[in-house]
Amino acid sequence: MNYSEMKPSEVRKLIREGKITGPTSGMCAGYAQANLVILPKDLAYEFLLFTQRNPKSCPILEVSDVGSRNLKYIAEDADIARDIPKYRVYEDGILTGEYTSIEHLWRDDFVSFFIGCSFSFESELLEAGVPVRHIEESCNVPMFVTNIECEPAGIFNGKMVVSMRPIPNNQVVKSVMVTGSMPRVHGAPIHIGDPSVIGISNINKPDFGDCVKIKEGEVPVFWACGVTPQSVVMNVKPKIVITHSPGHMLITDTKNIDLKF
Amino acid sequence: MNYSEMKPSEVRKLIREGKITGPTSGMCAGYAQANLVILPKDLAYEFLLFTQRNPKSCPILEVSDVGSRNLKYIAEDADIARDIPKYRVYEDGILTGEYTSIEHLWRDDFVSFFIGCSFSFESELLEAGVPVRHIEESCNVPMFVTNIECEPAGIFNGKMVVSMRPIPNNQVVKSVMVTGSMPRVHGAPIHIGDPSVIGISNINKPDFGDCVKIKEGEVPVFWACGVTPQSVVMNVKPKIVITHSPGHMLITDTKNIDLKF
Repeated sequence: MNYSEMKPSEVRKLIREGKITGPTSGMCAGYAQANLVILPKDLAYEFLLFTQRNPKSCPILEVSDVGSRNLKYIAEDADIARDIPKYRVYEDGILTGEYTSIEHLWRDDFVSFFIGCSFSFESELLEAGVPVRHIEESCNVPMFVTNIECEPAGIFNGKMVVSMRPIPNNQVVKSVMVTGSMPRVHGAPIHIGDPSVIGISNINKPDFGDCVKIKEGEVPVFWACGVTPQSVVMNVKPKIVITHSPGHMLITDTKNIDLKF
Repeated sequence: MNYSEMKPSEVRKLIREGKITGPTSGMCAGYAQANLVILPKDLAYEFLLFTQRNPKSCPILEVSDVGSRNLKYIAEDADIARDIPKYRVYEDGILTGEYTSIEHLWRDDFVSFFIGCSFSFESELLEAGVPVRHIEESCNVPMFVTNIECEPAGIFNGKMVVSMRPIPNNQVVKSVMVTGSMPRVHGAPIHIGDPSVIGISNINKPDFGDCVKIKEGEVPVFWACGVTPQSVVMNVKPKIVITHSPGHMLITDTKNIDLKF
């Protein structure tokens, strides 16, 4: 099957039926994919406020209605409890299970937050002729915990996590312009160059993901990363929080190009 | 006193001391002014979600912490209960008072929403040589209730309110580009041209504000308006809601130019 050419609704159906349980990278070319954080209603206000105060790390694509397993804007026929290939359940901050469906765990007070993902701007970078190293090397993007404090909101606080892509000197400006035009998927970089400025001591030892080669004539460029909200939620150790498993995203009906407006 | 040349903190001090009680238009040139909606905490989540779903009508500049009279981002030394020249208090949907201070009404469960205002993009339009008719005519901008449904959130729903500015044909594109670069103060227009398309039957009879002249060779251009969230809140008739009195805004320390990033 060529999942890259299929429609999002078709792939979501295969996921719902348990026929796809792996990572979604490369599926449904041109369509945005989304990170997921599900929290009980009593934490939803402070988390929504956190996303409002930290839009570069937490660009919200949609927040569900309380208790609803449906979406209204980014994926019309989706079932939030079944349309992600793999979910992670954390209780009191501890990973207690990975599931391909969370129907049996669903609660009427759950609120689902869908957050923009860098897959969208990477496809724009490639389109613009800017290389994306971890795609070339078929590994995960390197991610680092910085010394940049997120703006706190209620109980939520923590450091910003960034992803790093090495960019050739003569394409750094282009990479700022291309990603800056997509604020709903992290937007422009938060830092260009010397990693120590944002508290990164060893560029070859990412905190998450894989190390990638920085070639001569390339500059490390750092973008706010969707791992930030997950790491901030985990700090708080809520009684229950459900997320997607890394790389196993919701495939939305929203085209990347529509995230520019 | 030339309030136009003064610093925001200086003018806020005069307002706090009761020395300024009138409209803030034209004060502190170059700095953004903000609309205010204060709601009790039990309505804050659904209202914040409403603003998230309707960013063009409700571009949030800052949400206060619960019960706090201070701001952290847009006006550091401000007192939310005293730094607006005139407040309006509505109980069960009825205007029950206008005050120059709401200290005596303050409650520990109040949440304050500060929303971007078109003053910011009008100053950019003027800078770019685009005429702003209601400023030329020294009256209020014409505003219309449209047939465009806002995206509902919980109990909050209603039609979008827009403001209209007549723009010369050869400057329409420029006016889109200039305001489109400022998404935190309503951003690009929501409609250009024929008013009936968005449910406006008589362009010379605005629902709020004043009628302005549309000259030959000019097109009416419509922007989402900060009156939308106020009108949506009023629909719900909350037990209590406090807003600024029209034209009596919070003067922030945020420069208009910083709303572009």
